[in-house]
Amino acid sequence: MSFNSFGRVFRFSTWGESHGPAIGAVVDGCPPGLALSEADIQPWLDKRRPGTSRFTTQRQEPDQVRILSGVFEGRTTGTPISLMIENVDQRSKDYSEVALAYRPGHADYAYDAKYGFRDYRGGGRSSARETASRVAAGAVARLVIPNVRIRAYLIELGGDRIDPAAFDDAAIDENPFFCPDRAAAARWEAIVDDARKAGSSVGAVVECVAEGVPAGWGAPLYAKLDSELAAACMSINAVKGVEIGDGFAAARLTGESNADPMRPGNDGKPVFLANHAGGIAGGIATGQPVVVRIALKPTSSILTPVETIGRDGQAADIRTKGRHDPCVGIRAAPVLEAMVALVLADQKLLHRAQVG
Amino acid sequence: MSFNSFGRVFRFSTWGESHGPAIGAVVDGCPPGLALSEADIQPWLDKRRPGTSRFTTQRQEPDQVRILSGVFEGRTTGTPISLMIENVDQRSKDYSEVALAYRPGHADYAYDAKYGFRDYRGGGRSSARETASRVAAGAVARLVIPNVRIRAYLIELGGDRIDPAAFDDAAIDENPFFCPDRAAAARWEAIVDDARKAGSSVGAVVECVAEGVPAGWGAPLYAKLDSELAAACMSINAVKGVEIGDGFAAARLTGESNADPMRPGNDGKPVFLANHAGGIAGGIATGQPVVVRIALKPTSSILTPVETIGRDGQAADIRTKGRHDPCVGIRAAPVLEAMVALVLADQKLLHRAQVG
Amino acid sequence: MSFNSFGRVFRFSTWGESHGPAIGAVVDGCPPGLALSEADIQPWLDKRRPGTSRFTTQRQEPDQVRILSGVFEGRTTGTPISLMIENVDQRSKDYSEVALAYRPGHADYAYDAKYGFRDYRGGGRSSARETASRVAAGAVARLVIPNVRIRAYLIELGGDRIDPAAFDDAAIDENPFFCPDRAAAARWEAIVDDARKAGSSVGAVVECVAEGVPAGWGAPLYAKLDSELAAACMSINAVKGVEIGDGFAAARLTGESNADPMRPGNDGKPVFLANHAGGIAGGIATGQPVVVRIALKPTSSILTPVETIGRDGQAADIRTKGRHDPCVGIRAAPVLEAMVALVLADQKLLHRAQVG
Amino acid sequence: MSFNSFGRVFRFSTWGESHGPAIGAVVDGCPPGLALSEADIQPWLDKRRPGTSRFTTQRQEPDQVRILSGVFEGRTTGTPISLMIENVDQRSKDYSEVALAYRPGHADYAYDAKYGFRDYRGGGRSSARETASRVAAGAVARLVIPNVRIRAYLIELGGDRIDPAAFDDAAIDENPFFCPDRAAAARWEAIVDDARKAGSSVGAVVECVAEGVPAGWGAPLYAKLDSELAAACMSINAVKGVEIGDGFAAARLTGESNADPMRPGNDGKPVFLANHAGGIAGGIATGQPVVVRIALKPTSSILTPVETIGRDGQAADIRTKGRHDPCVGIRAAPVLEAMVALVLADQKLLHRAQVG
Repeated sequence: MSFNSFGRVFRFSTWGESHGPAIGAVVDGCPPGLALSEADIQPWLDKRRPGTSRFTTQRQEPDQVRILSGVFEGRTTGTPISLMIENVDQRSKDYSEVALAYRPGHADYAYDAKYGFRDYRGGGRSSARETASRVAAGAVARLVIPNVRIRAYLIELGGDRIDPAAFDDAAIDENPFFCPDRAAAARWEAIVDDARKAGSSVGAVVECVAEGVPAGWGAPLYAKLDSELAAACMSINAVKGVEIGDGFAAARLTGESNADPMRPGNDGKPVFLANHAGGIAGGIATGQPVVVRIALKPTSSILTPVETIGRDGQAADIRTKGRHDPCVGIRAAPVLEAMVALVLADQKLLHRAQVG
Repeated sequence: MSFNSFGRVFRFSTWGESHGPAIGAVVDGCPPGLALSEADIQPWLDKRRPGTSRFTTQRQEPDQVRILSGVFEGRTTGTPISLMIENVDQRSKDYSEVALAYRPGHADYAYDAKYGFRDYRGGGRSSARETASRVAAGAVARLVIPNVRIRAYLIELGGDRIDPAAFDDAAIDENPFFCPDRAAAARWEAIVDDARKAGSSVGAVVECVAEGVPAGWGAPLYAKLDSELAAACMSINAVKGVEIGDGFAAARLTGESNADPMRPGNDGKPVFLANHAGGIAGGIATGQPVVVRIALKPTSSILTPVETIGRDGQAADIRTKGRHDPCVGIRAAPVLEAMVALVLADQKLLHRAQVG
Repeated sequence: MSFNSFGRVFRFSTWGESHGPAIGAVVDGCPPGLALSEADIQPWLDKRRPGTSRFTTQRQEPDQVRILSGVFEGRTTGTPISLMIENVDQRSKDYSEVALAYRPGHADYAYDAKYGFRDYRGGGRSSARETASRVAAGAVARLVIPNVRIRAYLIELGGDRIDPAAFDDAAIDENPFFCPDRAAAARWEAIVDDARKAGSSVGAVVECVAEGVPAGWGAPLYAKLDSELAAACMSINAVKGVEIGDGFAAARLTGESNADPMRPGNDGKPVFLANHAGGIAGGIATGQPVVVRIALKPTSSILTPVETIGRDGQAADIRTKGRHDPCVGIRAAPVLEAMVALVLADQKLLHRAQVG
Repeated sequence: MSFNSFGRVFRFSTWGESHGPAIGAVVDGCPPGLALSEADIQPWLDKRRPGTSRFTTQRQEPDQVRILSGVFEGRTTGTPISLMIENVDQRSKDYSEVALAYRPGHADYAYDAKYGFRDYRGGGRSSARETASRVAAGAVARLVIPNVRIRAYLIELGGDRIDPAAFDDAAIDENPFFCPDRAAAARWEAIVDDARKAGSSVGAVVECVAEGVPAGWGAPLYAKLDSELAAACMSINAVKGVEIGDGFAAARLTGESNADPMRPGNDGKPVFLANHAGGIAGGIATGQPVVVRIALKPTSSILTPVETIGRDGQAADIRTKGRHDPCVGIRAAPVLEAMVALVLADQKLLHRAQVG
């Protein structure tokens, strides 16, 4: 309910700026007794960590997480879990240009309009660096929903879509793009290299599938599972669109072709013959895989000068030097997984609260 | 924080089922002293009301709203505003088929999976009838943001898009589709007639523009204006996708082409040379028009039999007789406007809380 | 999180004014499948109802509750339960004096200072009439915690305390004061009669005991069971003090005398040898009876003229004519029970959310 | 809305255990542009800090606070303010006895009943050490309400009350008891010394007055100012009772004697001739000083053996060795001030949200 917290009964709050001493998250409402150590969190942070390939920003951050509270003798106690990640590579840089003029596409102007001033170093609070806190919190959320498998991957980069027929889950971790289509991954190397060399940037579409979500999670009407997912996704930096299941394509289907027929299954649960709905009906999980898709705009930091205005209203041109991701969509994959995990953990506990 | 409430400081809660005695909303946190009577609410309800053309459900509901509290001598008192709409046309109907088997695409199976049983009469709580409560609450929200003009219209129906060059704001209220393109509106008559006659249904894309939102509204990071809008939109029945600004198309642009350059304006505020961002950066309004777009699936109620299962797990076929909208997207336009108004009213008050 | 809602996962919101057409409550988050009809709610309302003896206000209100949603075929569906009570006896009365001058002790001046104006008819939203909505919601809460027995009674009226040795649970329902001490009840008749005849009023202390609350309910640190109870109690009209267990008397004990020693019980649970703590330690229930006590000031409506000021700031005298409770503490007993039930139902579900 | 957060628009969340590496608070919703550095917080922490006199625990904690986020160039940015205090004096101690048996009056048994196990080192999360986080957050809250003067002091210790006639505001900071009555302070030295030497403990009553709260802050009905204060106070360790204004004494007054008559003031505001109400009517501030009073039980840690049970249910005796406050009420004074400041800051912003 506050500005920097998310969730209802399994909640997390994040804090910290790009160039402050540290960033962090406080996870509240976690069930007690779950085995948790830094080793459960670090691998997820490593997936999001910058500087692991030439396709992401070259900022060097080890992103070592510390658990400061909420764990005793290796298990969660049910009290708040404080996670902290120190900022290491706050390269001394001249921010005078960014301090004085607004970078179009960034939050610079909006923050000034709201707060009267801003921490302009590396984007301050609006930096995608904050998403490391989400990934750390998401690692805790995963422990709450051990039977749910969450997997995010890029299906489009710079306008180039994968071939669904070439989808190979095993490929996702083999390339720096979380791309399930090996041929596409190869093409994307050139796309990102070109964008980087040109000082340009490209967008991406990331899909996330959560398998093992039991029918019944979710809560009509304003805590609908899809509504919560939409809020969670749209809060990720650079996201401009969210789809559940067929998304916008569903608007072009007829009722017959959009139906997800059911047949009796062997275990008493229905077998669905299609999943246009993306696993959610009426805001509640149907037991099918939950499918979410997000669109990320191209990084706003580019070397091409863009017309803008300065803090005192004068005309100016600005080009964003420094270290940037040529495609923020790449590192968004682990962030999306984290947000989906956080929503599902919360919904599991909400469901348990009401229905037992 | 509860399941059927929305908003943080300007909040509303809705209650009621399709075939119960009434539905309603309680609006809380409304500023005092605003002139409010039923006459301020009724016109918006009338826009959403069923049965006004042959293109929507033939259920006859006058949707007369009553204000039961929170208004004294014609002005809001600052205390909860209780709005009630009686259900009139609960046609006596045989619901035994729906009671026994799940309609694919509807919430039937999911509700049963969650709650163990469900009110199957007309969809119960999951019925789009609930959106009348939102429209009533939204009418109150509009009074909180008198300088914001909110306008929603269909840009696609049954896969047929409008011609942006033919956009005419005046056309929107002249046809039963809230369609700003007169030629498209003419084509859509046939599309919806055909769907209705075939017992089929079609989807739609609805766009909403809010003009006059001042730069600064919104609240990073988990109460971002776009995040709140996404949650609000995705909570509307049948919505499967949400876009802000260019949405998914932004993912196919380069950083240069996606930039919204700024020039000094005459009033001290910047003039933006483009609005790919849809008026929001870093979760905060930039002062440009806020642009939201939603995709609605085709109505799941169709006459074609669909394979399904019954409550006791047996195979069945079901076709949905009765009165239905062949395109739920049409009546979603006033609902979308209401939800955008509700989000913006809340964000205005939140902004005022923090920044004064 | 909103102003007129209470609870976290089992929530209720109330609306309505003393002299509007109706008052009501919306209960959200209720578990599905509970048997519920008006007959489950009415008896509790009848206990709080005015005009049942000469010791309460003579306003005649049948307080008939209607369930407008959330129940299907006699069982809760898990969706919002809308409860409405019509105001019947809004006696046509001249409110011009109250409209023009502030009654000391009432919310008149504070409401005007906050909102700029107020509904002055019978106190508007600040009227104790609102507590009928709580009692109705509390009746639903009781169904969520069927194994908890909640019992409130007056232990002091007009400064006259009961004799603890004379405590008889059976006596509580035998007199109009919810007094467990028959001799005290007899004395109180005279006290209240005298106050009523003198146009004066008296205060009261009400105690509530909840038996059957299992050890573990409650949630540190800011959703502590005692913290939630304190908020719930202090929100009741005219309450000026709240105690848990020994309350203020505990401040005068030594650590040894305040200890609640434990011995092994036969059922694996401890037997406590005392209950100074009132069943709560560290914000969590210990399994002992939960004991809450509230102090209610004397009704502010008195016939003796009191110095005050008018709306335009001028000096005035005011005496409150009309129908009033000479002791608001009497009818507070069923309200306190309701609030305790509402807190406990919420805490039960919260506990289940986190711990399973 | 979560378990370890407090507030609605000005919110804080705390984390950390007595014997973990650190404790902390995240303050969210703070207005931007306020001058803030560690130097604004440290003095308040120093007042609460242990080991400053022989009358408090001898644990040595410098309680040095670090601001990790939310401040840029010396001013608050409007983003979350992360405050961290390292635990320094986690004396290596044998906790085996506490691990195995429950200390009556402590949260030991309740935590185990809830969570299945607990961090038994120094009370873990239930330790009063957590209140340092509140004091740090409260120091930020004070900056939001610069015109409000908040002052807490003990009026009773070990059953010995101050003489109201001897009240001297200047005395409060001259003695280790925050006692406004110099003669009482002298007596209390002996009372606490005796308790400490005997391995016993005593309770206390602390009063807090907030001057300068404008009429209108507060929000009926479930965010009433007194209701929020009651929740805030009751969440403080060892508190068993809360009063507003005359509190329980009001229950023994008549309506005439409890009235707070008003006369016209020179500045257009009323002059109140009494303040039985403690500055709050109908949940809204009247402009008079807000008066809150809390009762704290004697410290449960005593050297006298108390009957208890062990983790596996067996009978045991336990005496609490180690460093403890013989009267937790003493250090509660700065904590109470902090909680009152946090409530008032939140209410100021809430009021501004709704009323502007």
